[in-house]
Amino acid sequence: MNKNRFDNKLSHPGLAFQPLYKQVEEHVTQLIVEQRWKPGEMLPNEFQLASELNVSQGTVRKALNSLTAAKILNRKQGIGTFVSEHTGHHSLYRFFPLIADGKTPELPKAELLSVETHVATKQVAEALELAPKAKVIVLTRRRILNDEFCIAETIFLPHKYFAILEKQPEIPHTLYHFYQTQFNLTVRDTRDSIKAVLATKQDAEMLGINEGEPLLEVTRVTHSLDNKAIEFRLSRCRSDKYHYLVELG
Amino acid sequence: MNKNRFDNKLSHPGLAFQPLYKQVEEHVTQLIVEQRWKPGEMLPNEFQLASELNVSQGTVRKALNSLTAAKILNRKQGIGTFVSEHTGHHSLYRFFPLIADGKTPELPKAELLSVETHVATKQVAEALELAPKAKVIVLTRRRILNDEFCIAETIFLPHKYFAILEKQPEIPHTLYHFYQTQFNLTVRDTRDSIKAVLATKQDAEMLGINEGEPLLEVTRVTHSLDNKAIEFRLSRCRSDKYHYLVELG
Repeated sequence: MNKNRFDNKLSHPGLAFQPLYKQVEEHVTQLIVEQRWKPGEMLPNEFQLASELNVSQGTVRKALNSLTAAKILNRKQGIGTFVSEHTGHHSLYRFFPLIADGKTPELPKAELLSVETHVATKQVAEALELAPKAKVIVLTRRRILNDEFCIAETIFLPHKYFAILEKQPEIPHTLYHFYQTQFNLTVRDTRDSIKAVLATKQDAEMLGINEGEPLLEVTRVTHSLDNKAIEFRLSRCRSDKYHYLVELG
Repeated sequence: MNKNRFDNKLSHPGLAFQPLYKQVEEHVTQLIVEQRWKPGEMLPNEFQLASELNVSQGTVRKALNSLTAAKILNRKQGIGTFVSEHTGHHSLYRFFPLIADGKTPELPKAELLSVETHVATKQVAEALELAPKAKVIVLTRRRILNDEFCIAETIFLPHKYFAILEKQPEIPHTLYHFYQTQFNLTVRDTRDSIKAVLATKQDAEMLGINEGEPLLEVTRVTHSLDNKAIEFRLSRCRSDKYHYLVELG
């Protein structure tokens, strides 16, 4: 085992006094962030990891259990442990909670309306932990379920992480997979704040509804595996035929 | 080990072909449901459980990990594994997602307005998996955050599980803890469907706002540990100064 790895981790003040398995968990996460193990790749077995990291197999198992619970890794029974990829249907749905009433979850299509570079407003800079007036790439899209516009969304991405996005010939519908494969930014978690609002004239035009109809406004901040704020997203969602589903427990 | 326990579990068609740890998980859950282990009680250690259930310690650990992840059990480092109680601040907040803007989560107070017994409507009977026209106990409450009414809620409980509630002299604010301690019904999960609606005249009177203001309508179905639908709840929430928070990941 290369001792420097852990020495290096331990010198980080935020990581002091963590239980051993937590340190192993952070270390494995770091290896994924550094793409030593890529999305979809199989990890060495517990025995090999324990021996390489000079900890017990129980500690490795505890760390891998925790990363599996966080969906950063996934286990295939009798095969091994893999780095999660944001391609599987499960992980695509996981972060998309708007569902047509009485239907099963379905992934919406996206119509990309514009890609522009702007100076971040105060709200966006704060949410993305950027310096005031930092540059952001702004995508506007409409999402489509059942051949109907259901969401008008504005997505703000830090220019410092996504500079090359401006030059991409094509931007796919499944952005989180795109961030993972093209930018090595894997979504770890999202935080949605939901409010009820009245449709503005612009919402009404975007969604083909009447001004003043009630909409769900979902404000999302997304963090990557290495804890960067990578996306701020403002979604204005119809809920006359759709609902935002939350399962707790 | 009393072999009948597992034989009994295995004779249940829904449990056939489950991995061993899943069977142990179901079995431990059943023991909690039957109050063999009560909320707050410490479980025997892994070694004792493995020996009593005649499975390996690894299998017991896997089952307990899964129940801990589901928050049915909780671990206290160096002490042991306990049956979760719905008293801790964490578990009380866990199912209450409305937060005042810019504030930290706080548990709202409740003003109980009425307790009545009714015949279930079709929607309520379906949500609670009851026979048509089954009896339900209906509570209406207003929730209070920062000395202000923020939610008007109507709660429907199956009469068959909650009959004695009509005779309770006092109904506390923290219902889930009350269900657990008085009715032996532990909340396992909730499923919220969220829509944006316009305040009706009644909402306006209940919440001290204007008719036509946008509100979040949260429709919740709650299941117990033994998978009974125990509560249907309709909440009309202000979101002018509050937001519904969802953290995914």
